[in-house]
Amino acid sequence: MNSNTLHITADAIVEMEKRFRVNFINGLPGFKSLNLVGTICPLGQANLSIVSTVTHFGSDPPLLGYVSRPETEGAVRHTLSNLTETGVYTINHVGRSFYREAHQTSARYPREVSEFDATGLRPIWREGFRPPFVEASAIQMHLTLRDRIDIPANGTVLVLGQVTDVFCREDLLGADGDLDLMRAGTVTGSGLDGYFEAHKLARLSYAKPDEPVREID
Amino acid sequence: MNSNTLHITADAIVEMEKRFRVNFINGLPGFKSLNLVGTICPLGQANLSIVSTVTHFGSDPPLLGYVSRPETEGAVRHTLSNLTETGVYTINHVGRSFYREAHQTSARYPREVSEFDATGLRPIWREGFRPPFVEASAIQMHLTLRDRIDIPANGTVLVLGQVTDVFCREDLLGADGDLDLMRAGTVTGSGLDGYFEAHKLARLSYAKPDEPVREID
Repeated sequence: MNSNTLHITADAIVEMEKRFRVNFINGLPGFKSLNLVGTICPLGQANLSIVSTVTHFGSDPPLLGYVSRPETEGAVRHTLSNLTETGVYTINHVGRSFYREAHQTSARYPREVSEFDATGLRPIWREGFRPPFVEASAIQMHLTLRDRIDIPANGTVLVLGQVTDVFCREDLLGADGDLDLMRAGTVTGSGLDGYFEAHKLARLSYAKPDEPVREID
Repeated sequence: MNSNTLHITADAIVEMEKRFRVNFINGLPGFKSLNLVGTICPLGQANLSIVSTVTHFGSDPPLLGYVSRPETEGAVRHTLSNLTETGVYTINHVGRSFYREAHQTSARYPREVSEFDATGLRPIWREGFRPPFVEASAIQMHLTLRDRIDIPANGTVLVLGQVTDVFCREDLLGADGDLDLMRAGTVTGSGLDGYFEAHKLARLSYAKPDEPVREID
């Protein structure tokens, strides 16, 4: 850090204009995963919602969580009510070729409008699965809802699901189980609205106290 | 998707060799944030731990969460016990110039070894703050612990904290509050051990139902 280091205090954060604060705080985690959550309501209406909070909670069983705002109108709330009612949903990586359409799913469409129709993203209806997958997505998952965990600090809901099935291109899965997200065209996000592609620096060996890390692959 | 699409079933995931499954499931969220969590134990020993699960939970108040394994030996567990005892910690973005040292903090050092000493990463001790910041990091935060939320599905712990102070270079903060993570040199991760730099595709305008998204900035 140099002499141009800003110290942004708790008071300064409180006093920020609302939109400024939302942009700023959303940048603090660093780069984020970007996924489309696909659901269906009991009457058959498909819903699609972009989320930037899908997080690994465990590998055995395979658990992913994401953060939902219960009070919000629009796609996010429809997604939460759909997956709560049906108990199932899909998570689909956002790719370079369709990140604009993915972003557009965050618009507040009325409940009777499917984000698939509104954005032109095409669903796949797979036999044996209830919610829609996103055809353009290189890595698609089906999950069953494991838990809805209320976050007392601000009323959000942590949606925790177990991955039951994964669909991906054969060339993306490495011999050691590693998924090649760069080859998949998966994008990453910053803040509320920044979209980035990733370029590999290295894979690093399992760290041990008395060995320097080395590049693998 | 084409004819080379793999369908990986729940049974196939159960039958995977453990390391293969860990690699595979860790790739499913997409690209991840990479941060160093800095803590101090009540006796004064500094601790540093890389995490790939820092997630935005809300902007007002500013809340970030990350997932900790309570049962794990090594740095992760020391971090959890330190921040529980002291109620404070720092989160520091992992940057391109020191991602190897950041990765090395995941080695299972004995409790009496500070990962700062072991990796050569230098702490900053700021007046008025108890835990150490990471000098090399372009974006550094101080947090107070708000909640420890047990995840019944697998025994992990969601550590939820409120950001009280942010230290960052002046040139990283945009006029609308957006943080320039690319300029900061912040890196992103995939799987357990993949490190990537990000290249901007676009920032997109706030999505509305009847307007096409456009690039901003």
